[in-house]
Amino acid sequence: MIKNDLLLRALNNETVNRPPVWMMRQAGRFLPEFRNLRDKYDFFTRCRTPELAAEITLMPIRAIHTDAAILFSDILVVPQAMNIEVQMKEDVGPWLPNPVRSAKAVEQVIVPDIQETLGYVMDAIKLSKEMLNDEVPLIGFAGSPWTIFCYAVEGKGSKSYDVAKSFCFTQPEAAHALLQKITDTTILYLKEKVKAGVDAVQIFDSWGGMLSPEDYTTFSWNYIKQIVDALADETKVIVFAKGCWFAINDMAQSKVSALGVDWTCSPRNARYLSGGKITLQGNMDPARLLSPIPDIQKMVKQMIDAFGKDNYIVNLGHGILPSVPVDHAKAFVEAVKMYGS
Amino acid sequence: MIKNDLLLRALNNETVNRPPVWMMRQAGRFLPEFRNLRDKYDFFTRCRTPELAAEITLMPIRAIHTDAAILFSDILVVPQAMNIEVQMKEDVGPWLPNPVRSAKAVEQVIVPDIQETLGYVMDAIKLSKEMLNDEVPLIGFAGSPWTIFCYAVEGKGSKSYDVAKSFCFTQPEAAHALLQKITDTTILYLKEKVKAGVDAVQIFDSWGGMLSPEDYTTFSWNYIKQIVDALADETKVIVFAKGCWFAINDMAQSKVSALGVDWTCSPRNARYLSGGKITLQGNMDPARLLSPIPDIQKMVKQMIDAFGKDNYIVNLGHGILPSVPVDHAKAFVEAVKMYGS
Repeated sequence: MIKNDLLLRALNNETVNRPPVWMMRQAGRFLPEFRNLRDKYDFFTRCRTPELAAEITLMPIRAIHTDAAILFSDILVVPQAMNIEVQMKEDVGPWLPNPVRSAKAVEQVIVPDIQETLGYVMDAIKLSKEMLNDEVPLIGFAGSPWTIFCYAVEGKGSKSYDVAKSFCFTQPEAAHALLQKITDTTILYLKEKVKAGVDAVQIFDSWGGMLSPEDYTTFSWNYIKQIVDALADETKVIVFAKGCWFAINDMAQSKVSALGVDWTCSPRNARYLSGGKITLQGNMDPARLLSPIPDIQKMVKQMIDAFGKDNYIVNLGHGILPSVPVDHAKAFVEAVKMYGS
Repeated sequence: MIKNDLLLRALNNETVNRPPVWMMRQAGRFLPEFRNLRDKYDFFTRCRTPELAAEITLMPIRAIHTDAAILFSDILVVPQAMNIEVQMKEDVGPWLPNPVRSAKAVEQVIVPDIQETLGYVMDAIKLSKEMLNDEVPLIGFAGSPWTIFCYAVEGKGSKSYDVAKSFCFTQPEAAHALLQKITDTTILYLKEKVKAGVDAVQIFDSWGGMLSPEDYTTFSWNYIKQIVDALADETKVIVFAKGCWFAINDMAQSKVSALGVDWTCSPRNARYLSGGKITLQGNMDPARLLSPIPDIQKMVKQMIDAFGKDNYIVNLGHGILPSVPVDHAKAFVEAVKMYGS
């Protein structure tokens, strides 16, 4: 039994004294101990070495005492396992030297054996669970098929993702074939994560908000939904689709346990769009953690008041920024723990 | 009298046989004749030479026959006139070597004499009007104070604009002082543009959608509103705030003549959020112009059906992409002209 099970209770729609709190990218660059490790080991070494991944996973639990851990890894280990070369250039981001841009290239992409290609992730989960010693739950994650597709087709980050979109609009059959392969792989991958011990999973759709509502349904949500349907009986699934306020209503009617919302969607709009009952997660502007600490404390209280303490998980509206001082992140977490007292 | 006054009639809420059509960034890189000029003259030479600016302004009228021209210029001529150095690195974007990040730096920023610093824009307007020969209306534009502020503080484009936000959150007095100086300058600038002959103006808030609804009101909309109030008696004002679906309701209650919407906001949502009557402008995903021409034609028809032909200006949801083939842009415009026939 997990000692601090607030996250799981919120995902279960149970009444709580205060909502749980964690932060996207909490196992990341804002922590000095993370930056130290980063100077010693390159990106994929950190992902692939279970001892390092587990060590990083626990860093925010020790430093700022969040109510959940999220496994340190990257969404791009999935395309890497699918036979797509992925490099990570420090301070630049992902770099895929052979972007997938034709039906022929899609054929080369495989749905891999998960244990064989991503066994190191499962080892990192087992080790993290051991080290967490049932203190708080562990969240596993994956990128959404559309977000992975964007990187696979563009070969790097982009402002408009027009190469990825153009592939969808001009070669829809090949695009859907690639999206399906990513979906199939992600389902297998997340099922293995559950077996390895994660207590919940989150799907990150970073680039869904680049699509029109209709294209979002066709090229992103239809695939996320397959994953949610395949996983819902085995674990709690959180979907965070940045910028996808327009799809909250549809998404809330699926088997998701919670929906993440970004900071452009007010708590009131989020509750209205989602129908009022589903657990929501978010949504402070990450840049707001650069505000003076008294402002952070005030905003946390207002945010919980606005979402309501139940059916709610406190988080940021996107990943924590590397420039946030640790004591500001700590103040955010502590303000949640003080709520109602 | 302007021969094709469809745009002005739509801005006046008059009934029309079909809506007018123009495209943001239509005087831009997707046109081969623009790319030719670009190889010969650098960015600010093109802006500052009235003959070149007017020539570029007319290019899309001749090539794809839109119902309005928009003056070729850049939003960053304004901070440049305000004593902030602005360079333009081709294929990289704006570069401001001395970003404004302190109260002291804000003091150095001036509200300039417009004729003295930006007289070349007025000359370009007069020449464009002459060359247009009253065929179609001419739109003038400015960046929103918040968007100009973002560049002034960050010194370049950014993913999260957290330096600009941090300046607002930690030095609010200095931030508001800078926003007010930009606002005052923009009002003077747009009034001069109206005197020089533009038939309508558009304010571009490219980065408003990076803010929470509350921060948007404080740091962006409150300043845009000052501009709208100051100009509304003299000309028609269109506000395009990308990603600001959450503020459409507030904005629609101001003196704007039209609101631009991006493609994440369905026509139905846009009409609902704006209260149903105000003229709306948009909103096809610019990447959708990469679709096959029959798809473009179909989508244009659906879009006009959904917005309704009245109180509507057909446009993209953001600027046209440089990679769009000219015949696709032409098909977009022609599909609007064929509407209802």
